[in-house]
Amino acid sequence: MQRLHARLPSRSYDVLVGRGVLEALGAALRDVVDGAQAVVCTDENVAPLYLEPASSSLRAADFEVSHVVIPAGERQKTLERVEEVFGVLYERGFTRDDVLVALGGGVVNDLFGLVAATYLRGMRLAQAPTTLLAQVDAALGGKVAVDFRAGKNHVGTFYQPWLVVADTGTLATLPPRELRSGAAEVVKYGLLAGGALMAELEAIAERGGMRPDDVSDVLVSACAGYKIAVVEDDEREETGRRAVLNLGHTIGHALEVAGGYSRFTHGEAVALGLRATLRLSVAVCGMPPDEAVRGESVLDRFGLPARAARLPAEQVVRLIRRDKKAGRDGVRYVLLEALGAPVTGVSVAPELEEEVVRWITGGAA
Amino acid sequence: MQRLHARLPSRSYDVLVGRGVLEALGAALRDVVDGAQAVVCTDENVAPLYLEPASSSLRAADFEVSHVVIPAGERQKTLERVEEVFGVLYERGFTRDDVLVALGGGVVNDLFGLVAATYLRGMRLAQAPTTLLAQVDAALGGKVAVDFRAGKNHVGTFYQPWLVVADTGTLATLPPRELRSGAAEVVKYGLLAGGALMAELEAIAERGGMRPDDVSDVLVSACAGYKIAVVEDDEREETGRRAVLNLGHTIGHALEVAGGYSRFTHGEAVALGLRATLRLSVAVCGMPPDEAVRGESVLDRFGLPARAARLPAEQVVRLIRRDKKAGRDGVRYVLLEALGAPVTGVSVAPELEEEVVRWITGGAA
Repeated sequence: MQRLHARLPSRSYDVLVGRGVLEALGAALRDVVDGAQAVVCTDENVAPLYLEPASSSLRAADFEVSHVVIPAGERQKTLERVEEVFGVLYERGFTRDDVLVALGGGVVNDLFGLVAATYLRGMRLAQAPTTLLAQVDAALGGKVAVDFRAGKNHVGTFYQPWLVVADTGTLATLPPRELRSGAAEVVKYGLLAGGALMAELEAIAERGGMRPDDVSDVLVSACAGYKIAVVEDDEREETGRRAVLNLGHTIGHALEVAGGYSRFTHGEAVALGLRATLRLSVAVCGMPPDEAVRGESVLDRFGLPARAARLPAEQVVRLIRRDKKAGRDGVRYVLLEALGAPVTGVSVAPELEEEVVRWITGGAA
Repeated sequence: MQRLHARLPSRSYDVLVGRGVLEALGAALRDVVDGAQAVVCTDENVAPLYLEPASSSLRAADFEVSHVVIPAGERQKTLERVEEVFGVLYERGFTRDDVLVALGGGVVNDLFGLVAATYLRGMRLAQAPTTLLAQVDAALGGKVAVDFRAGKNHVGTFYQPWLVVADTGTLATLPPRELRSGAAEVVKYGLLAGGALMAELEAIAERGGMRPDDVSDVLVSACAGYKIAVVEDDEREETGRRAVLNLGHTIGHALEVAGGYSRFTHGEAVALGLRATLRLSVAVCGMPPDEAVRGESVLDRFGLPARAARLPAEQVVRLIRRDKKAGRDGVRYVLLEALGAPVTGVSVAPELEEEVVRWITGGAA
């Protein structure tokens, strides 16, 4: 088991990574939470697999356990769903000292994180991510949100958990497409960090792509550790430091929305965004073209999509320009000067932005 | 004009207090906000009086100004209203750098504060309180929330503004009942701080009660300064220090809810809560009875209600015990050992709690 520690201005907490650590959930939580009640919140895919292990671990630590199970999928991330869960907590008499355990993938972490952040102005929260994407990204760093109209994560806040338990054993039951999607976020960290992490990903790619056994605790910890270090420096995305984590996401989000959240998973959209970003990096930041090719090759070997063919480029450009991180002067990109050398706050000429979007939404290179 | 400065972990900002300072809103905001757009959010009572002065001050500082006007009253503090305002901001293309100005009383500060805190995970916010209650309490300290079912402020977060502009000139147009209600919160500060502030309130009481001209900039600043100092120590109500501000509010909230938010204003309910708290303080904390009488006398002279006659005591007790600040071991009270000497985290025996509720909801002393 790997134990990371996040030291943020608003809260410090442990991040446990390892096969079987879900069994340690209750005991680890009992160390930091006083409340009598725990509600395990999850979705219909995860519930049959991990609701019972999580619940018994909590019961063994003297929590009174109940649960909330919602349908799976991004379309659950609505204000209506948040309000419904408020109603459940209200009926069950939850206090601030009681704990909400978000058990599942990114949707579960985001949606129930927002519930915990705002119910009674903030109750105890534990994140128990069960997808690769959530273990290296969504469950870390305190961003919680739901979607609003066409805006992904358009309504939310920053709220740190009291504990993160990332059981890498759960990845064995992840559908292959979900594992590939998580791999896209892992590639993001490889591009940002370069060095040993990028080399490890290229080695996995050489072996033919990422399978559950390729995801070592050390690999997940390396990604989680990168993210935690960034978030420790800029918890609320105010200094610009945290912006590096958006590598590939500005265009990726727009593609995800343009695809109606159904054509691409979040990770697939991020992979497309990373490809577009590598192209922009070569054009704008002087990234060596061979390094961009190395990034693209890993994405190829991991079976991630190459193009968002037939999405309307004009709509994608419009969505990019309405990104929630856009300021007065338009969208600022995170690009790479080289592998391991991100730069933030980069302006891209509108024509180039449009050209890259046409490229990623086109059939041809 | 008085200029206070709040230095909080999450943000530092100025609090301007004085007659006519609404004219300075735009210029002061331009110093701390980059955005192009400002939306002035207010209610139907305040709009005819102060929407235009606020808007022209903002236009003069080069903001593109629009507005949102809602009906007045606590019943507006709903999740539905929050979602509706999200829709308006979405349609108008607001970014995080744009600013929401909450112009009005406590309802406006709470509701629109929550909108600003969660839209795009937080956009710029200015509080421009126009009631005495909001100027000394609701607009300060970053608590933003809406009501949920029977739970007052049951859903919300902590979010500090970029600027607070408290124009004491607006108190001249406040209905007398609203001024009295604000006076209840001022009395709370008098009880907490004792000394010169309590003496000043007793002098105003001697003159026959609080009129707009009795509310000096210095008086508002003294209350605001007390609150800011407390919040600086405990922004998110975690160390217990901030709990002193709940003096009278645990019972007050329950009475407000039991009265359906219509029988008592928030301030009237707080006044009743303060009376009950003074009684508990004498019984539990050894507060000298003559000091409790001094507190009650000021509330009498300010024309605040003496009893919540005919409210069902059992319901009020139930509501108290479901208070959102209740922990595993039940409700903890803020009481006084003496004027100017609050103590927090006090347990009260259930029988005494019930007796005091019967007293405050009864006709007789």
